[in-house]
Amino acid sequence: MISSATLGLSSHRLPPPPPRSSTSDPNPKSLSEPQARKHKGSPQLNRWSRARSIRSGRKLDRLHQRTTQRLELNPQVQNPKESEKREVTSLTGSDGYDDVEDTFGKAIFMVSDGTGWTAEHSVNASLGQFEHCLVDRGCPVNTHLFSGIDDVERLMEIIKQAAKEGAMVVYTLADPSLAEHAKQVCKLWGIPATDILGPITEAIASHLGVLPSGLPRGAPGRNFPLSEDYFRRIEAIEFTIKQDDGALPQNLHKADIVLAGVSRTGKTPLSIYLAQKGYKVANVPIVKGVKLPKSLFEVDPEKVFGLTINPVVLQTIRRARAKSLGFSEEVRSNYSEMDHVREELEFARRTFAQNPVWPVIEVTGKAIEETAAVILRLYHDRKHKCSMPRISKLY
Amino acid sequence: MISSATLGLSSHRLPPPPPRSSTSDPNPKSLSEPQARKHKGSPQLNRWSRARSIRSGRKLDRLHQRTTQRLELNPQVQNPKESEKREVTSLTGSDGYDDVEDTFGKAIFMVSDGTGWTAEHSVNASLGQFEHCLVDRGCPVNTHLFSGIDDVERLMEIIKQAAKEGAMVVYTLADPSLAEHAKQVCKLWGIPATDILGPITEAIASHLGVLPSGLPRGAPGRNFPLSEDYFRRIEAIEFTIKQDDGALPQNLHKADIVLAGVSRTGKTPLSIYLAQKGYKVANVPIVKGVKLPKSLFEVDPEKVFGLTINPVVLQTIRRARAKSLGFSEEVRSNYSEMDHVREELEFARRTFAQNPVWPVIEVTGKAIEETAAVILRLYHDRKHKCSMPRISKLY
Repeated sequence: MISSATLGLSSHRLPPPPPRSSTSDPNPKSLSEPQARKHKGSPQLNRWSRARSIRSGRKLDRLHQRTTQRLELNPQVQNPKESEKREVTSLTGSDGYDDVEDTFGKAIFMVSDGTGWTAEHSVNASLGQFEHCLVDRGCPVNTHLFSGIDDVERLMEIIKQAAKEGAMVVYTLADPSLAEHAKQVCKLWGIPATDILGPITEAIASHLGVLPSGLPRGAPGRNFPLSEDYFRRIEAIEFTIKQDDGALPQNLHKADIVLAGVSRTGKTPLSIYLAQKGYKVANVPIVKGVKLPKSLFEVDPEKVFGLTINPVVLQTIRRARAKSLGFSEEVRSNYSEMDHVREELEFARRTFAQNPVWPVIEVTGKAIEETAAVILRLYHDRKHKCSMPRISKLY
Repeated sequence: MISSATLGLSSHRLPPPPPRSSTSDPNPKSLSEPQARKHKGSPQLNRWSRARSIRSGRKLDRLHQRTTQRLELNPQVQNPKESEKREVTSLTGSDGYDDVEDTFGKAIFMVSDGTGWTAEHSVNASLGQFEHCLVDRGCPVNTHLFSGIDDVERLMEIIKQAAKEGAMVVYTLADPSLAEHAKQVCKLWGIPATDILGPITEAIASHLGVLPSGLPRGAPGRNFPLSEDYFRRIEAIEFTIKQDDGALPQNLHKADIVLAGVSRTGKTPLSIYLAQKGYKVANVPIVKGVKLPKSLFEVDPEKVFGLTINPVVLQTIRRARAKSLGFSEEVRSNYSEMDHVREELEFARRTFAQNPVWPVIEVTGKAIEETAAVILRLYHDRKHKCSMPRISKLY
């Protein structure tokens, strides 16, 4: 197999651009030719096919392999038996990721020689600005993450596939020769491409006066250190899990942040989100008719945050929750009926009013990470009392 | 107060660049003049100071405010009493974030009109390529996150401060006029600046043929939808928490992913990381001498992943853990002594060997997100059996 090390950019001949296939008009004939020529010997695809064969228990029949491979290259030209086997009952699987490979909507290919999470995060944030036209509004976007792509061969296959699917390419390639390759090939073939980490890494390099290592996460040369920070984060997550939903109120004083709010104000996902960032979080549910733990009023009030929500929205969320948990009619009405919801929120409001140091965060219409941003801004501002509210971190 | 709406970029006069202060040679005099001139009337700083005064219970004394404000602008020119009050015993606080505002090392300012998490994520990923020169190697970097910056006034204050601290600026500003402002001002003052989301948003806009909304997260025009995806993620987190550390083995069949490994292979943080991405995860601890739950061998083996680790590294981690948990000498030696560690890993190895369909992931030297990337690659590849291993998602 040809490794990326032996393939310099200049010595690697760039193949002609593959023809784009329109999803509405698949044309197997136009695809089969260049593929047959180009891919027959691709060690990467052979590797992928072989790996799949081994896992699926299929025999490593060379001929069969090659046929499957050629057919698989275009999602539209699938083995009919294979596609029948798939039960395409819904486009999105139970985990929110597509169950089918077929291109649906506009495609964005994300390619990384590391985990690919930065590309995913950035694309996701950017797509937030196109909410007005995504799936519900008739302009769906399908993202495809290819992570751990650390050789030119695989990179080329993916870019070729992007050309065929009419996808744009977004990449985070720490290896400078791979990044340059992606740039040149996409330019040559007219594929819109964006380098996510390149510009910021260059800017940091020039700011620090130090060259970047060029090594992606997980590369042999980049040993992950068992740093204090690493253990602290794990400890924060473990603490937060144990502390969830009012468990162990005697430990509230050990938390960095304490969240108080009625059921379904997002305390648990918010706690976990903050814990991932290294904060020990405890959350205390406010339930009408249930006395709050004494320790809640004994801890430093500067670290307690109240969560509140619009009653109508809360009722909607609770109804969905009660249904999914299969609550009985009686419990369900107690939990999600408007009078009950209003009374419980009023009880929370009074509790918050009696503790004026606790900031009260309105979570209605906020994503977990937005509420987290508000809380951490206040938390650091209170803690550090610096001239300009900021969250500082040392690397 | 002047809002950003009334301040067009062209009509807004750009102030002269503030002088840079070197951290090693603070020069209060050179700073006081332009600040006194420029900041006296800043409504934003007044707002910040006032907010702090209210919270701290200080009286809203206008004169006092102004003095504090002027002094606070440069971290080096602090009220001596204030700085004495701070116990700067360690540079980094218990939550891993700096306890002090003082600039230490090279500064990176991250400015966002949203949560700022994309900027933080990208800078963090990029800094990964400078591991060879960060804090332990004598070239520390201090990042400062300014989130929710949605008016020109505050943006200008921050860029001014960046100029003073010799910081570089990284921004994710959805509002195009703010982004343009940041670009122009940084250019004018010679501050190195990088727009993180601009290029990718532009590329997506052109790919989709749709204009971006220009609204940051949490902006009034961008209502967060209570989508299926949102509830699914919350459900995944709640499921994963309940399932942690082998609890409720009868629910293993409900999980998307099951992790099995000995203590301290990172099962819990890994489960939580995957849960945040929307996967229901259950983890099963492998303990020498403890029978594994029958359900582990009854669930679809394609969703079970074994975790393994180098015994020496595992021992180091366990020793640290045993110490921090205050285990008794006897328990500690059982838990972290080499013979025990090896035997337990051998027991895990045999279990994995008896279940050849389970992939075994080596976690030694891997960050949680790296292991997560490997697992999700395999998970999606097995589930979808598409021509090229990819993780696809519909927006």
